[in-house]
Amino acid sequence: MSENEDLQKSFLDTVKYDEKGLVPAIVQDHETGKVLMMAWMNHESLLMTLEKKKACYWSRSRQKLWLKGESSGNMQDVHDILIDCDGDTILLKVSQKGGACHVGYHSCFYRKVKETLDMEICDTLMFNPDDVYGKKS
Amino acid sequence: MSENEDLQKSFLDTVKYDEKGLVPAIVQDHETGKVLMMAWMNHESLLMTLEKKKACYWSRSRQKLWLKGESSGNMQDVHDILIDCDGDTILLKVSQKGGACHVGYHSCFYRKVKETLDMEICDTLMFNPDDVYGKKS
Repeated sequence: MSENEDLQKSFLDTVKYDEKGLVPAIVQDHETGKVLMMAWMNHESLLMTLEKKKACYWSRSRQKLWLKGESSGNMQDVHDILIDCDGDTILLKVSQKGGACHVGYHSCFYRKVKETLDMEICDTLMFNPDDVYGKKS
Repeated sequence: MSENEDLQKSFLDTVKYDEKGLVPAIVQDHETGKVLMMAWMNHESLLMTLEKKKACYWSRSRQKLWLKGESSGNMQDVHDILIDCDGDTILLKVSQKGGACHVGYHSCFYRKVKETLDMEICDTLMFNPDDVYGKKS
């Protein structure tokens, strides 16, 4: 594929959704490069992200649009959007308020695999989920 | 989820594969933090990655195990493996030989969205794919 072919189409025509109408979005801190999470977008959430410049996803568990931070306040301001060669994965570069992870860590990738195939915590706890989302009874 | 619950299971018991038996793997340069690509793993490719410490994926298009770099020579040495809160996304921190992208760029995310929703090239061409994979007639 030549550079010209690569750039012929607009971004919205380049995105390829899967059979469920979703595309994965990798979320990275725009300054440090730390990978914070991966979530899924449908066309509507992508349009909302472009419009608001705040990350908006499709919640597969709740089957609804999910403006990141709507419950926790931990919004993601979107600085840049990149797309991969196949058009089927998006990369968001964001500034993350608080922590990205619902467990309370800065990143959802807070567990690292050890040589033994056990895991260890490799990230910082930013908040207590009970305080943010309410304690589950 | 408490820290203890988080670490009770081994890594291999924590990974959750989708209905196709696959889990997405985000691939990041272990030194610069640059996101290079996303690919999919099945259980076998994950075991091979752990054993060889070289990234191995499941090629959805070719429906076969894919040791990254087997055609191009652009292998990925795996330094760290992280897993997300839900256990359904993996993050590989690698050192990438040459370019990660089959188009010839260092990263598959070589196109950035502009304000106009056109795209621009934002990465470096590392090789000519015709030289590496052979020219398609």
